[in-house]
Amino acid sequence: MTLDEITAYLHEHIPFTRGIGAEAVHWDGTSLRLAAPLLPNLNHRGTAFGGSMSALAILAGWGLVHLVLRERGIECRLVIQRSTMDFLAPVEGDFTATATLPAPVPWERFLATFERHGRARVTVSASIACGSVVGASHQGTYAALRT
Amino acid sequence: MTLDEITAYLHEHIPFTRGIGAEAVHWDGTSLRLAAPLLPNLNHRGTAFGGSMSALAILAGWGLVHLVLRERGIECRLVIQRSTMDFLAPVEGDFTATATLPAPVPWERFLATFERHGRARVTVSASIACGSVVGASHQGTYAALRT
Repeated sequence: MTLDEITAYLHEHIPFTRGIGAEAVHWDGTSLRLAAPLLPNLNHRGTAFGGSMSALAILAGWGLVHLVLRERGIECRLVIQRSTMDFLAPVEGDFTATATLPAPVPWERFLATFERHGRARVTVSASIACGSVVGASHQGTYAALRT
Repeated sequence: MTLDEITAYLHEHIPFTRGIGAEAVHWDGTSLRLAAPLLPNLNHRGTAFGGSMSALAILAGWGLVHLVLRERGIECRLVIQRSTMDFLAPVEGDFTATATLPAPVPWERFLATFERHGRARVTVSASIACGSVVGASHQGTYAALRT
């Protein structure tokens, strides 16, 4: 999928992503980066709202796994089970959430477990950045269920 | 503050809350409940998007601590440090996030530490519900800094 196709998919199926102005800006088969402007995501102090950052990170991790499984022709329902976000620094401008595939061993174990049992889960890291500032780090655990 | 005043504050200062249709529906001095409609928070499967639930829970916990400190006349900057959400069941309709004050001992310790050092942190639980279904449970750690 191209970046435009990913953005269109998100905007069509998850209307929330339109509201926060999310779009896909990088996808190379092993990492996915989504971007969002500060303005619709401001908090009461003029920095990015933690809930917006958390939502964008959840979405980046989910999108990454979804895209990789799709490219392998694996049909499944993919849902988030656990989200943990550590907020490290205020985000004072437009920001991105970048999710990257886990190391080969846990990733291959995830695929093998899914293949065997029709269900498996995997934890994906994502980070929120604004320029050179890392605003937050996220761990999302996603469960894949054969459909 | 009345429920309408809380909702107006959120809509004015955190524009995201307008986009997801959040409003305050219960506030009794020790617990705060925010509600959101399903429609603007749909995911690709027709249930509530995890990121929306996470954001509403973060907001409920933050709002609760903010309101209680405000009623005590405590001026501070209140920011989220950590958010952990466990997703328990799909949410198939309008939903709420209810945050409740921690037990008296950790809460009084938080207030005493803030009083003494001008900074303290506290963990607040919140749960996402849709009718009788508990969709997710949230733990938010918030830091208060004297301004």
